[in-house]
Amino acid sequence: MTRKVVVIGAGFAGLQLVKDLKGADCEITLIDQRNHHLFQPLLYQVATTLLATSEIAWPIRRLMRRRKDVTTLLATVVGIDRAGREVILKSGARVPFDILVIATGARHAYFGNDQWEKDAPGLKTLEDATTIRRRLLLAFERAEVTEDEAERGALLTFAVIGAGPTGVELVGIIAELAQHVLPQEFRHIDTRKSRIMLIEAGPRILSAFPQGLSDYAAHSLGRHGVEVRTGIPVTAVSEDGIVLGDQPIPARTVIWAAGVQASPAAEWLGVEADRAGRVVVGDHLALPDDPAIFVIGDTAHVVSDGRPVPGVAPAAKQQGVHVARVIRARLADRPEPAAFRYHGIGNLATIGRNAAIIDFGRVRLKGRLAWWVWGIAHIYFLIGTRSRLAVALSWLWSFLARQNTARLITQKETLRDTD
Amino acid sequence: MTRKVVVIGAGFAGLQLVKDLKGADCEITLIDQRNHHLFQPLLYQVATTLLATSEIAWPIRRLMRRRKDVTTLLATVVGIDRAGREVILKSGARVPFDILVIATGARHAYFGNDQWEKDAPGLKTLEDATTIRRRLLLAFERAEVTEDEAERGALLTFAVIGAGPTGVELVGIIAELAQHVLPQEFRHIDTRKSRIMLIEAGPRILSAFPQGLSDYAAHSLGRHGVEVRTGIPVTAVSEDGIVLGDQPIPARTVIWAAGVQASPAAEWLGVEADRAGRVVVGDHLALPDDPAIFVIGDTAHVVSDGRPVPGVAPAAKQQGVHVARVIRARLADRPEPAAFRYHGIGNLATIGRNAAIIDFGRVRLKGRLAWWVWGIAHIYFLIGTRSRLAVALSWLWSFLARQNTARLITQKETLRDTD
Repeated sequence: MTRKVVVIGAGFAGLQLVKDLKGADCEITLIDQRNHHLFQPLLYQVATTLLATSEIAWPIRRLMRRRKDVTTLLATVVGIDRAGREVILKSGARVPFDILVIATGARHAYFGNDQWEKDAPGLKTLEDATTIRRRLLLAFERAEVTEDEAERGALLTFAVIGAGPTGVELVGIIAELAQHVLPQEFRHIDTRKSRIMLIEAGPRILSAFPQGLSDYAAHSLGRHGVEVRTGIPVTAVSEDGIVLGDQPIPARTVIWAAGVQASPAAEWLGVEADRAGRVVVGDHLALPDDPAIFVIGDTAHVVSDGRPVPGVAPAAKQQGVHVARVIRARLADRPEPAAFRYHGIGNLATIGRNAAIIDFGRVRLKGRLAWWVWGIAHIYFLIGTRSRLAVALSWLWSFLARQNTARLITQKETLRDTD
Repeated sequence: MTRKVVVIGAGFAGLQLVKDLKGADCEITLIDQRNHHLFQPLLYQVATTLLATSEIAWPIRRLMRRRKDVTTLLATVVGIDRAGREVILKSGARVPFDILVIATGARHAYFGNDQWEKDAPGLKTLEDATTIRRRLLLAFERAEVTEDEAERGALLTFAVIGAGPTGVELVGIIAELAQHVLPQEFRHIDTRKSRIMLIEAGPRILSAFPQGLSDYAAHSLGRHGVEVRTGIPVTAVSEDGIVLGDQPIPARTVIWAAGVQASPAAEWLGVEADRAGRVVVGDHLALPDDPAIFVIGDTAHVVSDGRPVPGVAPAAKQQGVHVARVIRARLADRPEPAAFRYHGIGNLATIGRNAAIIDFGRVRLKGRLAWWVWGIAHIYFLIGTRSRLAVALSWLWSFLARQNTARLITQKETLRDTD
């Protein structure tokens, strides 16, 4: 009889897996707690008013409409009954499986300081992005009306904690906003005087890149008016701002880009996890003691060629591809493929307008050319002609007209916050 | 010394007024409780997943960036001190004025049944639109998973109360969604079996149009699978659904498009208002006893050629134009212009895909041609090339690919609602 494959999570890993199972002899149930697949590499642009939410997210049902073998379920998973072979939903309903693939991703982590989240939101979901967008825009609005000098200073101080690609990309656009997009629009403040800080506890920014490229990035951010502070940990975060080492810095807008914590998959399964909460998996990305339960993407601790596989989209997709192969082989009683190996394509990061760095190993690019390569690559990886056109249009506009098109404050909080 | 002009509300009326005051010898403060101007005629398309929020809204500051004589203020007005000539903000701050223009628009009204709002939201703001969008999409999601026959029926019943242009346009797209966009995507339900009702207490739909056109509209909606019920009042609304006359109709999604109530401007001013709460104004759209306080747009009860002026965008703009003329004349000590007269251009309404009706008085159009005229007219009235391109692209896509591009459920409620 047809085997039941249940996939939890429609991110890069889960979606790739389902795509590659097309035509296989199984019934697939794809469960996600949101109704959309999100193109996370561009989420920071939604948070910083460059892109609209609908430009980087697609209804999962829509993507699966022609796959009659796939049933999409909008639901939240709260547990897994390994003995009974069932996924347990928040509603109490249970979804039986023969083969289970967990691709539930990660959230940002505060290293035991969860109380910081309220004042230093992270960036993983569309809600995170619109929350950060709202705070960013309201800070300028409040600075415009306040009579209090010190308060104005705190409102015009923006601190991004964590200098990985996301942190760097965030400060890049915030600087662009303050320097070029907003100045004309305010009458009482000069947004160009904003203090935009990128804070990194480690010795340098973009530590995944070669020294040369990360030096270039730091220099380039400096020219964009960003204050880069490395080698100093943030010791406290509150509604007043942050404490850097022992120096308090009043800041009304603080964004967290410093760390991630895997989804609670390990708890669901009752298995070993690494420090980041990722499930430790074997050669075929399945549980060592249960080959029918796979864990892939940011939820999995995967080692390839003796090195841990990074939590990036290409890695997640490659894992989806591999597990699809393994499942197909098993369904057809064919021998399983060789163990998973990660093929790193390269690292990319943008640094605001006209600058980016790319590390393809042998080939390294920086500056304007890298920026164009970065943009074209990302448009290529978007889903569907329509999104590509829409994103290209938005980028063209902010590039030519220096107008960011997604500058709406829609949450109800607007009123409370400003009055 | 330069006169202080304060404008409350950046809708069609307020924005037009400020535009037309360009170069006049005055300092303008433009106050709005949102950071964006909204193109309300297309709001129903945001509510029904056709357009993204950022496609029909523009940051007010952005629109005013080159007007150094205009200060934009994001704030909520709570009162007006007529004697002290000051506008009172929620924050307690006060904004002095020599000339005041109130253009604060209207909200939907429940004719003394405000408790209905919770279960039958209206459509005036972007938040209203995203709320309705979420309910609409979640109804299909829940119908897909429920085991309860009756519940499924209620979830697939959509009732729009009020058959003015907004009501008609809403059911038109909901029908399009259920009939053509969604069917492929669900596995357990047939969205084409949805019951989509348009309810009107009056004798016919689109009563502002000639009998012939409203008959055509009703017939056309019928062909789109919409159940049109006229001449029956809704006597109750609850979370279970509605009561039509004395017949209960279980429906989980009910939308209110039946009536509007003006903003509380009349209370602020302590002046006479009509039944809809609109301020009764004189020839120059100012208070009869205070020529320096103007009220325009949906907040004003204006009579032209013995007939009340309708609450439509062109009327609001014309009032903005007129008051700007009056103010300019006064600032320059020139004689004031003739009394305000409304020039009705015509009435337009779409009926889902490929059908619309237009009444230019002498000329009347219906069907496909009218639909294209309607679309081109609306794109023309959008602000900026970028929005025009974006909206045109979204429309083209839903027309050719039958894919609605703004189908995201982003509010946190998602989880609670579906699990």
